[in-house]
Amino acid sequence: MTATFAQLWAEIAPIGRDEAGGYSRYALSDPELVLRDWFRNKADSRDMPVTEDGNGNLFAWWGRQWGKGTVLTGSHFDSVPHGGGFDGPLGIVSAFLAVDRLRDQGYEPGQPIAVAAFVEEEGGRFGVPCLGSRLMTGVMEPEKAAALRDRDGISFAEALGAEPAGALPMLQRRVSAVVELHIEQGKVLVDHDAPVGVASAIWPHGRWRMDFTGVGDHAGTTRMADRHDPMMTFAYTVLAANKEARLNGALATVARVEVEPNATNAIPSLVRGWLDARAEDTATLDRLVEAVVKRATERAGRDGTEVCVELESVSPEVAFDVPLADRLAALLGEAPILPTGAGHDAGVLSAHVPTAMLFVRNPSGVSHSPAESAPEADCVAGIEALAKVLQELS
Amino acid sequence: MTATFAQLWAEIAPIGRDEAGGYSRYALSDPELVLRDWFRNKADSRDMPVTEDGNGNLFAWWGRQWGKGTVLTGSHFDSVPHGGGFDGPLGIVSAFLAVDRLRDQGYEPGQPIAVAAFVEEEGGRFGVPCLGSRLMTGVMEPEKAAALRDRDGISFAEALGAEPAGALPMLQRRVSAVVELHIEQGKVLVDHDAPVGVASAIWPHGRWRMDFTGVGDHAGTTRMADRHDPMMTFAYTVLAANKEARLNGALATVARVEVEPNATNAIPSLVRGWLDARAEDTATLDRLVEAVVKRATERAGRDGTEVCVELESVSPEVAFDVPLADRLAALLGEAPILPTGAGHDAGVLSAHVPTAMLFVRNPSGVSHSPAESAPEADCVAGIEALAKVLQELS
Repeated sequence: MTATFAQLWAEIAPIGRDEAGGYSRYALSDPELVLRDWFRNKADSRDMPVTEDGNGNLFAWWGRQWGKGTVLTGSHFDSVPHGGGFDGPLGIVSAFLAVDRLRDQGYEPGQPIAVAAFVEEEGGRFGVPCLGSRLMTGVMEPEKAAALRDRDGISFAEALGAEPAGALPMLQRRVSAVVELHIEQGKVLVDHDAPVGVASAIWPHGRWRMDFTGVGDHAGTTRMADRHDPMMTFAYTVLAANKEARLNGALATVARVEVEPNATNAIPSLVRGWLDARAEDTATLDRLVEAVVKRATERAGRDGTEVCVELESVSPEVAFDVPLADRLAALLGEAPILPTGAGHDAGVLSAHVPTAMLFVRNPSGVSHSPAESAPEADCVAGIEALAKVLQELS
Repeated sequence: MTATFAQLWAEIAPIGRDEAGGYSRYALSDPELVLRDWFRNKADSRDMPVTEDGNGNLFAWWGRQWGKGTVLTGSHFDSVPHGGGFDGPLGIVSAFLAVDRLRDQGYEPGQPIAVAAFVEEEGGRFGVPCLGSRLMTGVMEPEKAAALRDRDGISFAEALGAEPAGALPMLQRRVSAVVELHIEQGKVLVDHDAPVGVASAIWPHGRWRMDFTGVGDHAGTTRMADRHDPMMTFAYTVLAANKEARLNGALATVARVEVEPNATNAIPSLVRGWLDARAEDTATLDRLVEAVVKRATERAGRDGTEVCVELESVSPEVAFDVPLADRLAALLGEAPILPTGAGHDAGVLSAHVPTAMLFVRNPSGVSHSPAESAPEADCVAGIEALAKVLQELS
């Protein structure tokens, strides 16, 4: 059977959507489990058997499972809290529809094609982005992943219902190429007036947890001079991170905060902030984070507070396979080749298998927000491009 | 029957206590409902009938209910999140024990004495501090109070199980005096080497909700120059509030924060912060808040964000009844007379009835934190002082 983009998109559009149009589809939570069931149904109706790799990643097969030269495509279902609906799901929906296109054309692949749904790409639930691809490539120890906990204290192993299996030897032995299609997060394709582009590289990036600790006290009775208020150190650090990012031509964001006790009239004992930092090369990234930590520590000395910075995850610089990118760009009629600051499962996989990414134009450039969107015509162009690429590679 | 301070204190010590020793006893939540049952039991065992005023405030009576010249004492059970165990409950426990002392001495009051437990003093659940006393004095409209909602969306009326009754005409007609005993929030009594003091005034204070709105976007793909990040405006405002408080010899605190979506890799669309501001007079308080709002608005202009500041509650300057304070200080052997920056139900009531407060020494000066504490000997001295005061006034 074949379907149109509009049909499949309408099926998943209501799942995990809030009143404001944002999506909260955390890995292995109810909405994401509904999407995983939807994945199994779409695969069944296409006679594509589904396997799971013991890490929470799903694969729907056209051809022999883990046969020689397997071409992997797909993306992820999970979102950031109140995020957009395209970041992830577009790659999975497009993969099924590319399979439909190729079958409609009577194409018979010489190598197996698998449509993948990777688990916990955003790190929105368990804190480590690309958890599924990190596990299957062996970059993340399964014991460490098993122990990660969400904000309610549920571990990844509990959510998965099993200890994760870890590295998948078949990946390097049998997979010849990975192609992930994704909505663009930025406006390079708008500038190029092109519906589809090919990725060149992913900036190195990481997230650091910063614990600012002080002395909890009454907001109405503690003189300003007697305070050890960690909110001061936090606020200064937010501004310092912004300044250092600009100085270094890099990106720094503090977008997640937890305060204890978080009461209007109680000076906090703890403010916890997360630093998301990215740069075009590792040296710049290191310099940026060092500078932020130095400024935070100096300010803590003045505030009578303490700051402790801990690396939660880091993704090294990714340069996608250059011959592959050039070949796909040529195949797609000289599609633009562009870098991105966002992490992707394809970035993790690219260290192990020749990997490419296709981007679909995003008129607003906005991502991780309900405003994230791609026009239907561009999504269809993305599906056609992906079908061409899968045909070329299989 | 009579009890010792240690006995009664041990009975309530475990209620609502967390592992770190902090207390989360929100108004009309499970732990506070357990404390209200405890209040009824302690009153029953003393043959003190309990009445409720339709606003959630409890009264245990020694003598005719709302009889002429009633002397009100007591405090509140509710706490800030993870706060201390003394702020509030000490005044209720001490009131029952002061009744025991007077009865042991064979004293028969000429006027009724009522031990009160006021509801939602901290504003920790429904956002408006001294809600119970604001309702019974008519300062707060019952319809407005009914509609206040907690963080889970439960309204005050739902939590109370009824529409609040509002102003209590008996208060001004029949009550001759109010005395609230409270742990000191500060170290003035330590400096005076005195276990008990008498309040002179409460600084005017208020809380303002500040909504900083910007454009939610991807932290990894949005150039620094293209951002409209409300976290920047928030951070600047936190530092500005601190600076303005110092310049004005006042107090300003931003201790509660909510971020949307609060994800590490998503530039926030909204950062909401609460400003708690206090000063020795209303003119200074107004000047302080105006200056903070002005700086926040200027910065929002530079950040491409918006800021909206809304007053949530304000408590005007309270000067307690001066002859009453002088009389009690003399009765207690020239006890120190001291002002405070903290709000209290006694402050709300003082506009309607002659009102006094007794403070019990707090060696660390810390409040709204698990470190808040008073030594047993000082608590006993507080009970003895309260017994003397109730005898003097009834």
